[in-house]
Order: sequence, then structure tokens, then C-alpha cells
Amino acid sequence: MRISQLSAASGVPIPTIKYYLREGLLPPGEQTSATRAEYDVGHVRRLRLIRALLEVGRLSIASIRKVIAAVDDEDLGMHKVLGTAHYALAPAVEAHEDDEEWRRARAEADRLIADLGWRIDPGAPTRDELAQAILTLDRLGMPATGEALRPYAAAAIDLVVEHEIGTIPIDGPREAAVEALVVGTVVHGRVLDILRRLAHESVSARFFGVPES
Amino acid sequence: MRISQLSAASGVPIPTIKYYLREGLLPPGEQTSATRAEYDVGHVRRLRLIRALLEVGRLSIASIRKVIAAVDDEDLGMHKVLGTAHYALAPAVEAHEDDEEWRRARAEADRLIADLGWRIDPGAPTRDELAQAILTLDRLGMPATGEALRPYAAAAIDLVVEHEIGTIPIDGPREAAVEALVVGTVVHGRVLDILRRLAHESVSARFFGVPES
Repeated sequence: MRISQLSAASGVPIPTIKYYLREGLLPPGEQTSATRAEYDVGHVRRLRLIRALLEVGRLSIASIRKVIAAVDDEDLGMHKVLGTAHYALAPAVEAHEDDEEWRRARAEADRLIADLGWRIDPGAPTRDELAQAILTLDRLGMPATGEALRPYAAAAIDLVVEHEIGTIPIDGPREAAVEALVVGTVVHGRVLDILRRLAHESVSARFFGVPES
Repeated sequence: MRISQLSAASGVPIPTIKYYLREGLLPPGEQTSATRAEYDVGHVRRLRLIRALLEVGRLSIASIRKVIAAVDDEDLGMHKVLGTAHYALAPAVEAHEDDEEWRRARAEADRLIADLGWRIDPGAPTRDELAQAILTLDRLGMPATGEALRPYAAAAIDLVVEHEIGTIPIDGPREAAVEALVVGTVVHGRVLDILRRLAHESVSARFFGVPES
């Protein structure tokens, strides 16, 4: 199909498609003449992936490029590809190894992960993210022990096991499975965050006695 | 206390404190001479709030300013203050009212909220966020009905009711309660997101048969 048809099929405007091509997010079409290139369903699917990561995952173009490079790398196992997506979603957290408070929070994060029996890479940046959150809760005088966070861990693992990992089509083509896995991770994370804020609004309306509108 | 002591008590560097003062995030100290101002525990607490919103909530300075204005507005009920924090956390989503697909997704979002019996403002931007996520799931051929999202809603409401709203110190001073509520919302949201990504990594390691390291 031509670029205009690719635009129609994907709902992505032509200038945006050209931008993705320039940024290397979208592989070039097959050049059929000096001014014409042919695109296929692979391009439609790739555009869907980019939009999901951008609009729902809120990833930067640089992060999307990393995720796509991992998706495209046939030598990379599924676990590594997924890891790339996870780490792209992880905002950079500064570790403060010289700070006693930070080291305690980080130790608490590591202990929680160990107690849960979860298999997490020792170098995962997510560990620092968890330490940061624990440190913040602790500074605010809120429950910040592994014990206090266990209900969150329980809800998280339950959703992932019951509703996410199991639904990945691992018998089909690698690309489809990888994309489903990556996008599922990103979008389901967003869904949970959105529903949590909605739940908060609803509970708050009841709790603080706001009249029904 | 002087600005140097405020810095020591809060762990926030002096230039950063001066930046927050200029940006109006931190109220000025009491001027005791032309070159000297006195700060108190209220400033320490306010700095804690700013850091939590910034480092863990990842809010922009502009969003933090809005949240703080709501916290400071004594005429605003708790529910409204919390709403301000929620909406500051909600990334802007473009509604596409002229798009049939979008309208269907938005209707599905509204239906899920109604079926759950949740009390959500009809104009809440979170509704559009949910519609956006549903639309993305649907485009990717993933389960996107309210039914498919119910387990996420159930986990969310359970955590909020059991572990968040109930722990707010509403008998103490308004400012402390409001801060606990706002920060709790932000930090617990982050905690859940982090633990979900950790759960994903662990499940993925097992599922894809990565050897124990």
C-alpha cells in the first residue's frame, strides 16, 4: 500500500508517519520508484505499537526507539524484550548510596522482594524506584515497611498472573507475541493506575459526604 | 530557623529552597531583617510535600503549584482538594468526539464506572483516560470490555478502601490530613505501579524459563 493508504489504515496522519520514518521508529517501505514506497501490514502493526507506547504508555520517542530495537532483535529472548519495556517505563531514580536513610529504604525494598520470592534482576532500576517510594512514605510518617506494602504486591502479582501473562499468544509469530506482551504491560499498567484514581475519587466522595450529583 | 537550618532539617539544598520560594511553592519566611528570614516546621512539612509530589509523583512544577493552592485554600473541602491532586496526576488526553471509535470507547468507560456504582464527576478527565486505554486495548485486539477490566477495578477499590482512605488522620489539623491524603494518593499509586512492574518481571522470568541467577 502507499503512504496515504497506510495513513488511512492506521489512522496516523502522513506527516506523523514521515516523522516516525525519519526517527527510525518505523522501518522504510519498499522503494518501488524514486518517489514511491510500498508499505504492508507490518507497518500498520508497527504504527499501532508506537501509538500505544506513546499515547497510553507516555514513553518518550527515545524510550520507544529502545523498546522497538528490542522487539526487532530476533536474538533477544522474550524475557529480555519485556525487560527493556519495563526499564523504559521506569523513570530514572537517583540512588543515594552515601545516605544512611536511602540505604535503609533500599534494604527494605530488597527484603520485600526476597520475602515475596520474586525473581528480580539485582540491577533492576525498579528496585531503586521502590526504595524511593518507601523512603518517601517513611519521611511522611506513613507505613513503609515491606509488611505494609504486601497488599499492593499481592494485588499486583494476582493481576499479572491471572489476567496478563497467561493471555500472551506465544504460539503465533514471535513479533505478534512480543508486541502483545510489551503493549499489554504498558496498557494494563495504565489501566490499573486510572482505575485506582477513579476508585479514590469515588471513595473520597462517599467518605467526605459529598452529596450525590 | 534560618534557611541553612531549614535546608538541614529537610534535606533540600538551599538553592532549591530559594527556587521553590521564587516559584511560590513555599511561602516566604518571616522577614526578621533585610537579609534574614525565619522559617518554621510548617516550611519543613511543605518541603516534604513538594519533594514527594516531585520525586515520587513526578508532577510538574505547574501541577504542584495547583495542588498546593488547593491544599492552602481553607474553603475547599477535602474531596475537592483530593480531586485537584487526582486531576494533576491525570495526563491530558485528547477527546475525539467526532470519532465513532472514540465515542464507543468512552461509552464503555462510562458504563464500567456506572456498573461499578462508583461516584465519579461527569467531567472528570480520568473518564477520558480510561476511554483512551480501552480504545488502545481494542485496537490491539485485546480484551477491552468493562467485564475484562473488572478485576483491575476490584483490586483498585480494595486497596483504596482497605489501606488508604481509612488511614487518613482526619481528626488532626486540616493541613496534616490534606497533605497525608494528597501524598498518600500519589505515593501509593506509584507503589502499586512499581510493584506491578516487579511482578511482571518475576512472572516473566518464570514463564519464559530464564535460569535462576
